Amino acid sequence: MGAGAGFALGRLAQMLEATLDGQPERVVTGVAALASAGPDDLTYIADHAHLESARASRAGAFIAPVGLSGLPAPTLRCREPRRALATVLHLFHPGVEPAPGIDESARVAADARVHPTAAIGALAVVESGAVIGARVWVGPLVYVGSGVAIGDGCLLHPHVVIYGGCHLGQRVIVHAGAVIGADGFGFVPDRQGPLKIPQVGTVIVEDDVEIGANSTIDRATLGETVIGRGTKIDNLVHIGHNVEVGERCLMAAQSGISGSCHIGNDVIMGGQVGLADHVRIGDGAMLAGGTAVMRDVPAGQRFAGRWARPATLTHRIWVAESQLPDLLRSVKTLERRLAALEGRAGDRG
Amino acid sequence: MGAGAGFALGRLAQMLEATLDGQPERVVTGVAALASAGPDDLTYIADHAHLESARASRAGAFIAPVGLSGLPAPTLRCREPRRALATVLHLFHPGVEPAPGIDESARVAADARVHPTAAIGALAVVESGAVIGARVWVGPLVYVGSGVAIGDGCLLHPHVVIYGGCHLGQRVIVHAGAVIGADGFGFVPDRQGPLKIPQVGTVIVEDDVEIGANSTIDRATLGETVIGRGTKIDNLVHIGHNVEVGERCLMAAQSGISGSCHIGNDVIMGGQVGLADHVRIGDGAMLAGGTAVMRDVPAGQRFAGRWARPATLTHRIWVAESQLPDLLRSVKTLERRLAALEGRAGDRG
Amino acid sequence: MGAGAGFALGRLAQMLEATLDGQPERVVTGVAALASAGPDDLTYIADHAHLESARASRAGAFIAPVGLSGLPAPTLRCREPRRALATVLHLFHPGVEPAPGIDESARVAADARVHPTAAIGALAVVESGAVIGARVWVGPLVYVGSGVAIGDGCLLHPHVVIYGGCHLGQRVIVHAGAVIGADGFGFVPDRQGPLKIPQVGTVIVEDDVEIGANSTIDRATLGETVIGRGTKIDNLVHIGHNVEVGERCLMAAQSGISGSCHIGNDVIMGGQVGLADHVRIGDGAMLAGGTAVMRDVPAGQRFAGRWARPATLTHRIWVAESQLPDLLRSVKTLERRLAALEGRAGDRG
Repeated sequence: MGAGAGFALGRLAQMLEATLDGQPERVVTGVAALASAGPDDLTYIADHAHLESARASRAGAFIAPVGLSGLPAPTLRCREPRRALATVLHLFHPGVEPAPGIDESARVAADARVHPTAAIGALAVVESGAVIGARVWVGPLVYVGSGVAIGDGCLLHPHVVIYGGCHLGQRVIVHAGAVIGADGFGFVPDRQGPLKIPQVGTVIVEDDVEIGANSTIDRATLGETVIGRGTKIDNLVHIGHNVEVGERCLMAAQSGISGSCHIGNDVIMGGQVGLADHVRIGDGAMLAGGTAVMRDVPAGQRFAGRWARPATLTHRIWVAESQLPDLLRSVKTLERRLAALEGRAGDRG
Repeated sequence: MGAGAGFALGRLAQMLEATLDGQPERVVTGVAALASAGPDDLTYIADHAHLESARASRAGAFIAPVGLSGLPAPTLRCREPRRALATVLHLFHPGVEPAPGIDESARVAADARVHPTAAIGALAVVESGAVIGARVWVGPLVYVGSGVAIGDGCLLHPHVVIYGGCHLGQRVIVHAGAVIGADGFGFVPDRQGPLKIPQVGTVIVEDDVEIGANSTIDRATLGETVIGRGTKIDNLVHIGHNVEVGERCLMAAQSGISGSCHIGNDVIMGGQVGLADHVRIGDGAMLAGGTAVMRDVPAGQRFAGRWARPATLTHRIWVAESQLPDLLRSVKTLERRLAALEGRAGDRG
Repeated sequence: MGAGAGFALGRLAQMLEATLDGQPERVVTGVAALASAGPDDLTYIADHAHLESARASRAGAFIAPVGLSGLPAPTLRCREPRRALATVLHLFHPGVEPAPGIDESARVAADARVHPTAAIGALAVVESGAVIGARVWVGPLVYVGSGVAIGDGCLLHPHVVIYGGCHLGQRVIVHAGAVIGADGFGFVPDRQGPLKIPQVGTVIVEDDVEIGANSTIDRATLGETVIGRGTKIDNLVHIGHNVEVGERCLMAAQSGISGSCHIGNDVIMGGQVGLADHVRIGDGAMLAGGTAVMRDVPAGQRFAGRWARPATLTHRIWVAESQLPDLLRSVKTLERRLAALEGRAGDRG
């Protein structure tokens, strides 16, 4: 990319509402990490912990938090540097719009409706009755089942599978290998072995959701499994049948949500969280990584631990546990000393 | 679907061995969730907790447990309502038999043997020497390795991968993205780094097993990894090499079974269970969600916790843990009081 | 395979540096498990625990540890029997070299560079600018994104997805369904909901790495996610963005590494380990299965537990926990007895 394709620091400072420490006419043409940035690149430093690497960087300019000084090149000081990073990355990497049209190797059912601006990749399969919206990218080797509806602007990366009847809103991003709409895990005990309950519901994924690689979202037994607007789901997450996830939630990798859970809006989950079935998580609750939740969690609470307790209590228990082996010994000593005293008191009594 | 395609409540009552509270000639044409059921639909209420939603439902008839009353439409009262739900769902959704034949875009080796009633989907790959039984559905984009045997009536959803040499019994269901027969994780330490032990065994999946989306079942080093008849495995489950799983087990999502474990019959595991290698789980044992098992679990026992202990003990510890921080303080107080008493006793002695 | 294709025990003894108890000219033609080995097969016994099965085996010869006797057929006694097993399995199963060439159903971009000795399987997709090295196997239905580089001797099993721009070294093995290079999980809070930080970095997988089925390795936000030379990763493992994994590590199934973690060389992790973000694990550290790590772990240490503590302390706590419910009662008894004594001492004082 020539320097002409870049952005002047002065203009970036305006866009980012940043204070510029350096020449406003200086131009950067790319964004790179501290270690690999060159003199034409803008780079990013999160905090003081990376100051040494930053000083060794050959970067042409920095995005840095307010209050961090001593950097060896012009600096855009931002109150929210991560947000500023997101903004410049969107600016320098606006995303590739795949060329509209259906690859000749794709298999699209005659009665599927594909918007003329959508792109259907090589060896993708689109089944009967599916509806693909404007500017959608159905990546190579993707499977879109019968009757599936995909809203405008969705991106389905290679190897995504959408079972029949599921609905995706607008601008949904689904990463490779994710499976939406497989059967929920529902069986009735029987002498012959577990008897399958047919899973005839569906999955609704609302607008602006992102779903990570190899995650699985099961269809409902009856009705719908719902992922609310703006929620972001990381890799290898499992969402069971009939779960309802609210809006704007963040669910980190390998978390698992059992059937019929209800998760409010703005809930944040660390990685490897597990929820027992039918649990309700209130709006704005935060579950630390590894939390196992057996009961409802009230709105706005921070929970942690196995099995979930308020995060401050979990932390106090964790500290206390280390003293537990010594405590057992202390109590035995106390018992011995007390028995000795009682013996003497008895003699005297 | 016209009302003519439905079932009269009287006939359903007979089939379900249910007591009908309402007109036997009333016809229902579908099954739907409480919230979405219309006047021609049968719906299902699990227990009193959903009574309010049920009263607001527009459903034409209910499946309900014995003893639940006050519903606003004819009711089929069942001793096992979930089983009744399974029965009516099988009745109203008998499953689609895909049209037999090999899609012209599928790649089937010349010496693979495909039963004339089997259906091979678009862009599926069937390698040399594979044998595909009667009424099998090999979904679009599925990979069936060389020498694989697939028994009658199996359903392989899109993107399933079966490595060479594995065997599936009859009526096995495998959901999208599941991988059967990848190499087990076997290495020998070496100065150059871990040295691979070739995994030359196979996987045997017996009749009536169901395997969830994106689960992985590794081939044995030598011999076989076995999943016993009627066992049901949820999504994102890992089964290591040389594991033997018994019959009629239920394994919920994201559980992981390390190499060479032996799991008996009728074992039930919650989600995110983990087993260390070579562990044995006795027949009928139950492992709560999140249980980490380091040692053998006897038949019929309920275990829970990290690392696995009998479920009642785990629960008592969980309750006691909350008091642990206070306990530490109590013991310090006791020590101080006891020292004071001992001092006085010493003065007096 | 005729006996002529086999190996004489005397020659195997030399290759394995084993002591042979039996006739050196005796020939074996295969390697099989204890239960299924026949008279022409070599089999393997790990330790005394399997002695009974070994005595019942029909195997023609045994690989056994030094000191194990009483076997019913000629025996190769080895100081490292698992290493000997690896050696004979490589010998008897040298691996199939797929026939070079591009399957006519594969979709390879005109400007991709495919080495003439490489094999591109049926219905694979290789995008623009990708470079495929010598003797590489790109399995059926694999997706190789634009600009990806695949080093000599790599094996990509069916359904692997490599996003654009990622690099694989030489002799890397990737199992079915693994996804390399999906977007890291990076968002900034915003009133509208989480705002995506474009992930414009890449993934570098060094030589001799193996990656298990359905594992996911995310691309960096900026810079690279790195998997070091000789590291082996099991199934369903998640590696977050900007993680650096050292050389010769072993990471068992379902472990999850959050963003920006730094893992040293020769680190061993059991299954279902979880690391919080930005954690550093020192060289040679061992993390037991199920360990949840919130803080740095020093080199050479064994850690275990939730949340990670030195393994010996975790074990002592685990033992102490069982006594915790009784301990609570003991302390209450102590308090009562002490109060009684204090009362008497008060009377007397």
